Amino acid sequence: MSKPTPKTRGRKPPRGSFVTFEGTEGAGKSTLIAAFADLLRSRGRETVTTREPGGSSVAEKIRAVILNEPMHPWTEAFLYEAARAEHLNQTIRPALERGAIVLCDRFTDSTLAYQGAARGLDWNTLRRLNDIATDGLKPKLTVFVDIDPGRGLRDAKDPNRFEAEGVAFQTKVRKGFLRAMREEPKRFVKVTARSGTPETMAAELLGKIGRRIGVEAKTGAKR
Amino acid sequence: MSKPTPKTRGRKPPRGSFVTFEGTEGAGKSTLIAAFADLLRSRGRETVTTREPGGSSVAEKIRAVILNEPMHPWTEAFLYEAARAEHLNQTIRPALERGAIVLCDRFTDSTLAYQGAARGLDWNTLRRLNDIATDGLKPKLTVFVDIDPGRGLRDAKDPNRFEAEGVAFQTKVRKGFLRAMREEPKRFVKVTARSGTPETMAAELLGKIGRRIGVEAKTGAKR
Repeated sequence: MSKPTPKTRGRKPPRGSFVTFEGTEGAGKSTLIAAFADLLRSRGRETVTTREPGGSSVAEKIRAVILNEPMHPWTEAFLYEAARAEHLNQTIRPALERGAIVLCDRFTDSTLAYQGAARGLDWNTLRRLNDIATDGLKPKLTVFVDIDPGRGLRDAKDPNRFEAEGVAFQTKVRKGFLRAMREEPKRFVKVTARSGTPETMAAELLGKIGRRIGVEAKTGAKR
Repeated sequence: MSKPTPKTRGRKPPRGSFVTFEGTEGAGKSTLIAAFADLLRSRGRETVTTREPGGSSVAEKIRAVILNEPMHPWTEAFLYEAARAEHLNQTIRPALERGAIVLCDRFTDSTLAYQGAARGLDWNTLRRLNDIATDGLKPKLTVFVDIDPGRGLRDAKDPNRFEAEGVAFQTKVRKGFLRAMREEPKRFVKVTARSGTPETMAAELLGKIGRRIGVEAKTGAKR
């Protein structure tokens, strides 16, 4: 119940590396995250994997409300931001402050893509909500796992209410991610979904981003 | 799942009257609202009474999350806004469009007073969130039921986690309401808690605001 704003503004950026994974449904983000986490741990780095919406007790309760019934688009947007503020302060920030690498399945760009590009809420208002919820903490890197929306949906098991909205909706979501990527090209790395086994894709990803998160890509450097 | 923003911006104000009731804990808002609603109905006006957070199925689920456990202050603020957007679109706006008088126990000023003045979140950021959640729909009138915070707490039954924070907290909340009132004096009407029976207070309130909500104050006009 502390006041976060005065304390956290102007804080030094935490020591760890915050990497988010984004994509439409069925892109295989969670499989890639698991394989990438294994690889980072094999190099001796503390690695925390987490997901949105969720990742803390209150946030998981919010997740249950969001995923189970239809609601007004702004209600949906505010619920995601509520879960994000909790998740960031309970889970992500403490892990980063310990120096861990945090791999998060969905983050602020999903709000832009789903609630902005697909539901039609104002993009810049959503950016402002993202900034409030995260107190300005941005991912160091965002991995966009790209897939043809039709193919992604065919392979998604156990569809939630977003997946049930079909290919047209997912196509808008994908366009949203592409717009977010154009707006902040340095933060994004794009990978093609299922371009290899999870292990080979994880190794390739480490080759691309290892230096930026302080991990040697070469297996020769294995500890 | 419609896009509300393009549709609702520039909408004509709805025909009914939207009146909110604000105050610290134990001010007797809900008793006053019930008596005032009876009086309005006796004048033949459709009157809807509702409360925040809640007032719709999704909003009641959000209410259960908010009131039952501690959380980050911004999470709390976003959850109130999420519940508000849903409540406004599911309950308040449709009633106003039918021409009803809507009496709502707590609304946007509670966010300013509790999350702003008492928890220390940025006042103007909260104002902006209120505007987004309500799509600019403001109460026609806000009745501030003022009570000494110490007295209010002594009389509150079944304290929730806000009441449990004590007199110092409620005193900050009260200052927040006074600030909101100074900033928009025309919207506010102040009444003194327990200055009479609920019935006499309701009659006095009708005398003060009847004309502004289209209801004759004189009992001679009774139908």
